[in-house]
Amino acid sequence: MGLDTDLSHKNFPKKLLSSKDPIFDFNKAIVDATHDLCVAYKPNFAFYEAYGSKGYESLEKTMEYINKICPNNFTIADAKRGDIGNTSKMYAKSIFENMNFDSVTLSPFMGSNTVEPFLEYDNKWVIILALTSNKSHSDFQLTLRNKGIDKESSQLFEDVIEKANKWGNPENTMFVVGATNPNYFEKIRAFAPNNFFLVPGVGAQGGSAIDVLEYARNEDIGLLINSSRGITLSANQNQDFAEVARKKCLDFNLNIEKYI
Amino acid sequence: MGLDTDLSHKNFPKKLLSSKDPIFDFNKAIVDATHDLCVAYKPNFAFYEAYGSKGYESLEKTMEYINKICPNNFTIADAKRGDIGNTSKMYAKSIFENMNFDSVTLSPFMGSNTVEPFLEYDNKWVIILALTSNKSHSDFQLTLRNKGIDKESSQLFEDVIEKANKWGNPENTMFVVGATNPNYFEKIRAFAPNNFFLVPGVGAQGGSAIDVLEYARNEDIGLLINSSRGITLSANQNQDFAEVARKKCLDFNLNIEKYI
Repeated sequence: MGLDTDLSHKNFPKKLLSSKDPIFDFNKAIVDATHDLCVAYKPNFAFYEAYGSKGYESLEKTMEYINKICPNNFTIADAKRGDIGNTSKMYAKSIFENMNFDSVTLSPFMGSNTVEPFLEYDNKWVIILALTSNKSHSDFQLTLRNKGIDKESSQLFEDVIEKANKWGNPENTMFVVGATNPNYFEKIRAFAPNNFFLVPGVGAQGGSAIDVLEYARNEDIGLLINSSRGITLSANQNQDFAEVARKKCLDFNLNIEKYI
Repeated sequence: MGLDTDLSHKNFPKKLLSSKDPIFDFNKAIVDATHDLCVAYKPNFAFYEAYGSKGYESLEKTMEYINKICPNNFTIADAKRGDIGNTSKMYAKSIFENMNFDSVTLSPFMGSNTVEPFLEYDNKWVIILALTSNKSHSDFQLTLRNKGIDKESSQLFEDVIEKANKWGNPENTMFVVGATNPNYFEKIRAFAPNNFFLVPGVGAQGGSAIDVLEYARNEDIGLLINSSRGITLSANQNQDFAEVARKKCLDFNLNIEKYI
């Protein structure tokens, strides 16, 4: 479940806005209502940083709460960090040590130096952008790479998967594969048969959970399908937002269970 | 000047560690000692996030101070953000509105969606990773792109520059070009004759400011050459760190002025 907690969203409960920490109070209620129904929480860092150091504190409190109330739920720092060695190390300290996230999303543009400092931690995961759900993923991720005469060319997202599985392995490395790319699911799965995929883009962005399950799963399923606002911010101002989130979460799961 | 303020560095002045906000106190002293000698300050976000919401507050205070004391110095948020539209918008709010940075470093992996929300601001700049200074830039940035029969292939960093100059223009778009890539300077300059380059990697990483000036400049120079620890953290514990930073900054400038 994505925690993209947006105070300016029309469905953000107005009664919480006067509290001392509306972001944390919202997240706490959502976690209380759903932690038995989802395997993972994925706070999106931008939505906390948008409120400065106070928002960052809400994020820290949210993580502390999740790790206390439901320590077995997996946690994903959706931060899409991507920097060189000594800087990456600092990001790793922040995300894996201070906030005790289980995993982090990373951008591969700067290569292995970005990822290695995160892989030094035991029992933590890196989740590397491969083929994302947004429209402009086609700007670079689909780039055909010229490997020389007599060699088949490959696309950038394939190179990313190939290299990343050399830096790490399916026990510490996942990939972001957007739900909006059904035509690529089988190809990607062939490249990464044993890795978990984190799949955003179901719902608001137009991706279908059923397509994902049909073509992107492996023998063990191997999918973390994300939903954010579609679950957390779908109640109107007259409804109990946590209760509605629980209902939406049950619907989401039922839809998937039916199919599996 | 890069503000990679690292409390655990052996040269970080021990006497500051007991203050209420050692990071801010350090930055304040550095800014006081150098703002007449440098054109820009570039805080590296990881070094603040490593200290959680408290570190984020030090960053906010640093920016408030720079914008008060030396509003004409350019400011660079070295955050290397890279996400999709609605999330990028939140990062832009945080960096351009709340902290009033003049510019931000961005990773192009997810394409135009990452950059566009930042370009909506007037008088702000995006600084897009093209060919970075770290060793593993070769993992993907040098990838040869197959453009089809009879067309010359191009490297990923060239594609980035080409596309980014369609999203923006040289009045709002710069590129990160690492000083450790002297063999590529002329090629990159040919692709981006009118853009400013932000050049990290001089000093500790082995790049030469003279090479950069020789091969990567344009008619108006068009370069922001960065130095971080080499200036800010070169004093030993018995020296006045701000005084030494000022001296190092003068040396750095003299070296460049001599050449120009």
